[in-house]
Amino acid sequence: MALMTPEQFEESLKKLKPKVYMNGKQVEDILENRNTRTVVEANKASYAWALDPRYKDIMTCHSLLIDDAVNRYTHVSAGTEDLVKKAEAGTFTAEMLGTCIYRCAGYDAFHSLAGTTWEMDRDLGTEYHPRFLEYLKMVQTKDLAVAGALTEPRGSRSKKTLDWPDPYLSLKIVDKNKEGIVVRGAKINISGAYASHELAVLPQAAHFKGEEDYAVAFATPVDADGITFVCQYTPYSAERDMAEDIEELGNPVFGQRETSMVVFDNVFVPWERVFHCGEYAYSGKLVSRFARTHRMTCGGTCKVGFMNQIIGASKLIQEYKGLEKATHINDQLMEMVVLRETSRACGLAAAHKGTEEPLGSGVFLPDEIMGNVSKLNVCNAFWRVMALAGDIGGGLIVTLPSLKELKNPEVKDFVEEFYSFGSDEPTENIMKVHKLLQNWTAGLHGVGTWHGAGPVMAQKIMLQRVIDYEHEKNLVKQTLKLKEKK
Amino acid sequence: MALMTPEQFEESLKKLKPKVYMNGKQVEDILENRNTRTVVEANKASYAWALDPRYKDIMTCHSLLIDDAVNRYTHVSAGTEDLVKKAEAGTFTAEMLGTCIYRCAGYDAFHSLAGTTWEMDRDLGTEYHPRFLEYLKMVQTKDLAVAGALTEPRGSRSKKTLDWPDPYLSLKIVDKNKEGIVVRGAKINISGAYASHELAVLPQAAHFKGEEDYAVAFATPVDADGITFVCQYTPYSAERDMAEDIEELGNPVFGQRETSMVVFDNVFVPWERVFHCGEYAYSGKLVSRFARTHRMTCGGTCKVGFMNQIIGASKLIQEYKGLEKATHINDQLMEMVVLRETSRACGLAAAHKGTEEPLGSGVFLPDEIMGNVSKLNVCNAFWRVMALAGDIGGGLIVTLPSLKELKNPEVKDFVEEFYSFGSDEPTENIMKVHKLLQNWTAGLHGVGTWHGAGPVMAQKIMLQRVIDYEHEKNLVKQTLKLKEKK
Amino acid sequence: MALMTPEQFEESLKKLKPKVYMNGKQVEDILENRNTRTVVEANKASYAWALDPRYKDIMTCHSLLIDDAVNRYTHVSAGTEDLVKKAEAGTFTAEMLGTCIYRCAGYDAFHSLAGTTWEMDRDLGTEYHPRFLEYLKMVQTKDLAVAGALTEPRGSRSKKTLDWPDPYLSLKIVDKNKEGIVVRGAKINISGAYASHELAVLPQAAHFKGEEDYAVAFATPVDADGITFVCQYTPYSAERDMAEDIEELGNPVFGQRETSMVVFDNVFVPWERVFHCGEYAYSGKLVSRFARTHRMTCGGTCKVGFMNQIIGASKLIQEYKGLEKATHINDQLMEMVVLRETSRACGLAAAHKGTEEPLGSGVFLPDEIMGNVSKLNVCNAFWRVMALAGDIGGGLIVTLPSLKELKNPEVKDFVEEFYSFGSDEPTENIMKVHKLLQNWTAGLHGVGTWHGAGPVMAQKIMLQRVIDYEHEKNLVKQTLKLKEKK
Amino acid sequence: MALMTPEQFEESLKKLKPKVYMNGKQVEDILENRNTRTVVEANKASYAWALDPRYKDIMTCHSLLIDDAVNRYTHVSAGTEDLVKKAEAGTFTAEMLGTCIYRCAGYDAFHSLAGTTWEMDRDLGTEYHPRFLEYLKMVQTKDLAVAGALTEPRGSRSKKTLDWPDPYLSLKIVDKNKEGIVVRGAKINISGAYASHELAVLPQAAHFKGEEDYAVAFATPVDADGITFVCQYTPYSAERDMAEDIEELGNPVFGQRETSMVVFDNVFVPWERVFHCGEYAYSGKLVSRFARTHRMTCGGTCKVGFMNQIIGASKLIQEYKGLEKATHINDQLMEMVVLRETSRACGLAAAHKGTEEPLGSGVFLPDEIMGNVSKLNVCNAFWRVMALAGDIGGGLIVTLPSLKELKNPEVKDFVEEFYSFGSDEPTENIMKVHKLLQNWTAGLHGVGTWHGAGPVMAQKIMLQRVIDYEHEKNLVKQTLKLKEKK
Repeated sequence: MALMTPEQFEESLKKLKPKVYMNGKQVEDILENRNTRTVVEANKASYAWALDPRYKDIMTCHSLLIDDAVNRYTHVSAGTEDLVKKAEAGTFTAEMLGTCIYRCAGYDAFHSLAGTTWEMDRDLGTEYHPRFLEYLKMVQTKDLAVAGALTEPRGSRSKKTLDWPDPYLSLKIVDKNKEGIVVRGAKINISGAYASHELAVLPQAAHFKGEEDYAVAFATPVDADGITFVCQYTPYSAERDMAEDIEELGNPVFGQRETSMVVFDNVFVPWERVFHCGEYAYSGKLVSRFARTHRMTCGGTCKVGFMNQIIGASKLIQEYKGLEKATHINDQLMEMVVLRETSRACGLAAAHKGTEEPLGSGVFLPDEIMGNVSKLNVCNAFWRVMALAGDIGGGLIVTLPSLKELKNPEVKDFVEEFYSFGSDEPTENIMKVHKLLQNWTAGLHGVGTWHGAGPVMAQKIMLQRVIDYEHEKNLVKQTLKLKEKK
Repeated sequence: MALMTPEQFEESLKKLKPKVYMNGKQVEDILENRNTRTVVEANKASYAWALDPRYKDIMTCHSLLIDDAVNRYTHVSAGTEDLVKKAEAGTFTAEMLGTCIYRCAGYDAFHSLAGTTWEMDRDLGTEYHPRFLEYLKMVQTKDLAVAGALTEPRGSRSKKTLDWPDPYLSLKIVDKNKEGIVVRGAKINISGAYASHELAVLPQAAHFKGEEDYAVAFATPVDADGITFVCQYTPYSAERDMAEDIEELGNPVFGQRETSMVVFDNVFVPWERVFHCGEYAYSGKLVSRFARTHRMTCGGTCKVGFMNQIIGASKLIQEYKGLEKATHINDQLMEMVVLRETSRACGLAAAHKGTEEPLGSGVFLPDEIMGNVSKLNVCNAFWRVMALAGDIGGGLIVTLPSLKELKNPEVKDFVEEFYSFGSDEPTENIMKVHKLLQNWTAGLHGVGTWHGAGPVMAQKIMLQRVIDYEHEKNLVKQTLKLKEKK
Repeated sequence: MALMTPEQFEESLKKLKPKVYMNGKQVEDILENRNTRTVVEANKASYAWALDPRYKDIMTCHSLLIDDAVNRYTHVSAGTEDLVKKAEAGTFTAEMLGTCIYRCAGYDAFHSLAGTTWEMDRDLGTEYHPRFLEYLKMVQTKDLAVAGALTEPRGSRSKKTLDWPDPYLSLKIVDKNKEGIVVRGAKINISGAYASHELAVLPQAAHFKGEEDYAVAFATPVDADGITFVCQYTPYSAERDMAEDIEELGNPVFGQRETSMVVFDNVFVPWERVFHCGEYAYSGKLVSRFARTHRMTCGGTCKVGFMNQIIGASKLIQEYKGLEKATHINDQLMEMVVLRETSRACGLAAAHKGTEEPLGSGVFLPDEIMGNVSKLNVCNAFWRVMALAGDIGGGLIVTLPSLKELKNPEVKDFVEEFYSFGSDEPTENIMKVHKLLQNWTAGLHGVGTWHGAGPVMAQKIMLQRVIDYEHEKNLVKQTLKLKEKK
Repeated sequence: MALMTPEQFEESLKKLKPKVYMNGKQVEDILENRNTRTVVEANKASYAWALDPRYKDIMTCHSLLIDDAVNRYTHVSAGTEDLVKKAEAGTFTAEMLGTCIYRCAGYDAFHSLAGTTWEMDRDLGTEYHPRFLEYLKMVQTKDLAVAGALTEPRGSRSKKTLDWPDPYLSLKIVDKNKEGIVVRGAKINISGAYASHELAVLPQAAHFKGEEDYAVAFATPVDADGITFVCQYTPYSAERDMAEDIEELGNPVFGQRETSMVVFDNVFVPWERVFHCGEYAYSGKLVSRFARTHRMTCGGTCKVGFMNQIIGASKLIQEYKGLEKATHINDQLMEMVVLRETSRACGLAAAHKGTEEPLGSGVFLPDEIMGNVSKLNVCNAFWRVMALAGDIGGGLIVTLPSLKELKNPEVKDFVEEFYSFGSDEPTENIMKVHKLLQNWTAGLHGVGTWHGAGPVMAQKIMLQRVIDYEHEKNLVKQTLKLKEKK
């Protein structure tokens, strides 16, 4: 069987030497650095679940490509049942980790590449599809973790790509030769890629005549020459660096949400890993098919999992405070559940109404309208859930002293006494649950959830493109028996 | 085949003589009175669709009970596929009529009675279930239209049923004998029942020891002795009464939404039509199973159909005004679509996640949480859609002169000229579409949608009852490795 | 003293013979027709209050122009105290009538004309300002009711005025001579003008070179030759026409909200009543100053009065039902109060922050940003208040039978019994309060409130024009000590 | 003149030796510790402004008590003009600091104490009022910074104070003698108190018979024996501790928002500083008058200042990205302005409608309803503003690398290139403005704003207490001419 154990996964990472910088310094070992370690742990968990009898139904499936069980995150959906499972896996991984599974964008990139390479070959006679399938077989056989990368720095939004002063603000082919291509540019806001084996790189935007060099998609090992990761560094990174014990933190093992800018400074990619190269008319399709897949999961269903963590912590604090019968708290908890179930419903509906795209490709994508609706709803829902959790958690969420004070002989008795709520719950537990809510309500997730899978405007633009009003207009014409035009 | 033609349906109604009052006078013939006629037309349409090849898939299904095709509105769902079809039928009928199909509450009452009579028989050794099945066979074989009735006048909400000064503010058994029972009381806000063949009557609320006489469910012809319908009379009723031609109206054929109070003044019901009689512990189950079914449809999916009418009219007005490129209008139309799709998603998810209830009964009901979430969302969504349509439609929606002015020689030229928007659309069309939006945004539907299937508090109470937080709490405990209690 | 008694007002109307059409027929006497009578009653009330010691402080003020007490609705605000009183009067009249005081747009037109005629004279050497003051003195001395008129039919919004197929879709000067001007066109959605003495007519929009003939403002008696009123006719009009007794209606005396299209078919206006004629650069100022004044009142403060009616009725129904202790109802009532107070606050703040505009004119207008904010908030707030009142009122609001049933011997006992809520309140009262809420929640007010003083887009455009971000940007630059640009 | 220079203020702090703990260790010098220093800086600024000709009108006023100019934050409002200035000062300090002025709760405590001591003396013959005035004179004369403290740990909310296992979960008098009283307990979530001279301590809640020992209010120096400050420690604290240069941070000088738990472990307070001692019937008044004052400022107007920082940064990012013409961004900025102006309006209206409370005391408090409305609105508005800023700021707000990377020779060129947006703005500026938005949208302010001046439930409870519906009910009765009850 192709599946690696978590230990094998960790060993496999040791063989890679990605060039990673954080907080002004190089990260010598991503398995050791406290912040990069959280990404290792999250991806590692996905290997453990695939072998765990309790979770293998959701985390694995049978691949016809290699006729073997594979991790679901390497599989391209071939029907609506696959999509429903994909939606459920989005929730499962998110609620188990309390943060991203960093393999999600790669999984979605596979969906986009599978269909679009098939379509390019059909339309243009290129040979991208078999090349991609070979690549995917390799990924499945070796059970690799693959991160996806789309977002780019970009120049002024009021100017076109070709008018930007720096041509590399979008990733660009700078050389082509018999062996392959050389690219320069950067991808930004890329989730946890350095702890994967591979990067699947797609364009960020539609391209047009003259922009052929920007129309490029490929895969590359994370430690290819010329790749540099410049990591985010947030207050939560600093807190993790300074902690005496990760148990002090709001999400001890898996952390907040880690990203980096991935710089491609003249990186060589051999042809067998190039899946799109100059056919600008298909760049937009690669993006929009990725988005169509990603919006169901990242937009909708994984936030169901996040909300579960928030709801659980809010419920615990209600109990610690003796507020089980407070109507307004129960009402707020219920409002969170309603928002969560609405997200779940949109994700499920997107999956159930999924269709083959493009027709004949064998690749199934979630319903376009429903996926975008899912993401639009979750943007607002998530901030609202944060606000509600903040209400229930109370000011203490953001005014909590360090858990270190529980070991500080001069104040620990005070802390034990005055943060106990007079309950029989260990004060340490009470403080930790508050810390977890701090992690959710005073951290990166509000903005992160909004922008993951694109900000609302991206969904709105897509909806404007696909909504058709003929059915609705005809209903009115029929109801009113309207006359023909003059 | 059991299915009646629409003409047969109309003939069948003529044989019934329900006692109906409206606007202070008796309605001599519900087929002739302009306002009651709208209900006849709506129900009649459901007979036409069942025979129409375009719609029979959605409007009919095979009944194992009589081994024949039956109208879906007489069928009890036996699996999630039935529930998905039921959800789709809710949208279909609503968008075709632009108002209620008045058979929906009866359809849902069947779901509740099927499961609960089975359960009572199992638990108590009663014989309600076979009796109900016999009744249902008769309904299917004769292809009858059956209205449902639950809501009651009630007394002060701060007092218990037995403490109300008038015992009949909830429907009550006043006599029992060998042949059957006699009931007195009233059901209020009952949708369009007088143009059905039968009424299926359930309790409105859970009942308790001492309230055995209120624990009653039965079926009765609409013209049984002692039944009186006192119809609503709204500004829209007056307008229809006064119109020279129904084409002047916002929904010419099917009208706004018609209800009545149904008074039961010592009505006799024979035992073979009594399905619940004194077993108070099951009254609440009858209500909550009805609600569970009704909230998916009336709460969620039929409003998708209503919104389609509103969206279509808004789009037409946008075009009449030459506003196709106005960003803010396109944004508002899209917002309506997002609200509509969210309703659709919740309805579909409720159906897909439906379960057998009670286990072993063979009756499938939508997912309880999702159905309630569906209804909660739609309450707010519908008012918002009204507001958005009001914005697009403009002040003219509510300031429109009568369409009669188009025939008034003294002003018709002015009206033609000044309501044309300078477009090549007939002014009559423009005025009619505005009239249709008046019907939706300045009529009964805001309040009606909110209260159909129960007001938000009913959904909240049910959600409070069924939501369980153990899964979520355990996720947090696992993430933080919380200690045991002191 | 200049003030007329209400009886004198009614007499004075009898001398005017406006040409009015409604529901396909001419209205012979606006004092007799049931629907036009509501407008007469509303305006008449404003004469009564001015003489009532309880209300004269709010309804009158001293005019320096004629050195006498005048009705506030003929006065131009000369300071922020006047504006505060104006805001309070907006609330007072609205809550007393439960609908519009139809003198409000005229009042606001005076504010716009007073400042802009002064400015035109200063800039262009015209003589509009003294002419307007003479007109205003006459209005004050005779204590006339003056309606304002701006909104026009317009052609395709994607074309310019001069490109519309019909040049009269905006009101246009078609002739000028020594005595005056002749205009053709129409004003639509005009509130209750036929029961005023005079119309003050402003342009609807900014005008540009070539559109001089559209740049026109003037006053005219309502019965000038060529003026025709084509009245709205809504379900509520039909209901009033059909009522046996106006006590059956939701707002018996003052009705819903009456408007008409006012057609100007070659109407002559003498020069002494022309206040703007061709100076297109000032058309936009006339509109925006009107809007600036109108948004505080019509946008904000009068809706406080409407909400008071809605809140009062909701509270009464809560009590009738015995729901005084229901937390969720109390919460909803409070939410209505919060929305109402927010409207009040924005209106008051607009008044307190009002400024002289243009500088030197002596005319005070409310703060531009705050007035627009007030209107934007109220658009959403009012629909929300409607939804909440609909929840509290219950389905009965829209399913209520006619009050005539209380006199129908065949059903009156049932109606008395089953709509009593088992309370000691007369059933007639209960039904009437429901009818009043029907009037508010299932009528014209949602759309009407949104569009009164212009739809949200109008406010947004104005805000985009006046908001300046320099102060805010400088705060950030100072906090971060940002460097100069490269 | 009584006013200290900022340097004198800093010197004066050096003489105090409060016992402060943070992150498990004692803070040796609050002027040196990076996190406590932010509080020193914020308070220090208030001394500078008072002497700055640009700001002295807002930051100072004349005290009749000492017949001299005093810092406004030591003054008790004696009329609505004072309240308007107080509201404006709330905005001014907040926008200048980008965080709290830590003197605000003390300022509001003075308002509460001034009126309630007067009332106790009048009702009970106590002598608290002159004692308090002596204290206030001393504060004004010495120009002291005084923090306020109310919130307490509390035990189970389902139990009464006297039933908590630990009697000190609310602050309690444990001894009384001739010289004064001794108290034990804690105050939590106390804003920045350690960098003030004094603490003004009020009860947190109403008290009842048997709870006399909890009915206590007093003032104390921050370094009195037995007082210990246990400071919050958040990710932002860690980040500040780890920064090489505070210029890396989102609010370099003034920080996020600092609080601590203040433990009173048998603290002695001499009688001349005790203002409430056992008169439990007045404890609730002390709390509610504090809240009434605090909700206008902390609830409403200071958030106007915070929003100004957020709006300014969002606008700058829009410009950096070349999105000046993006309709949806302009719409979002406008929405922020509307939310801000609504907050401002409610605050201003609360001030303008302020009243003397209690009557005869000479103390003016903001309007109770309006102040609570202000706070309720801002709770939701602030989260919405955060969400909108997050949209405009983009994912980069939370994925930004450390500003240290600009000095890291291995990546600085990449960072300069790829975070430039191709604009001519220094990349450092761009990164800093993103960092400032991180500070606002991924930090403590969402939860902090919600809970400052009490969570929404506190406002709702107060509104329920003071809203009266008689006026509104009477309007309806008059409109409908309702009959008397049966």
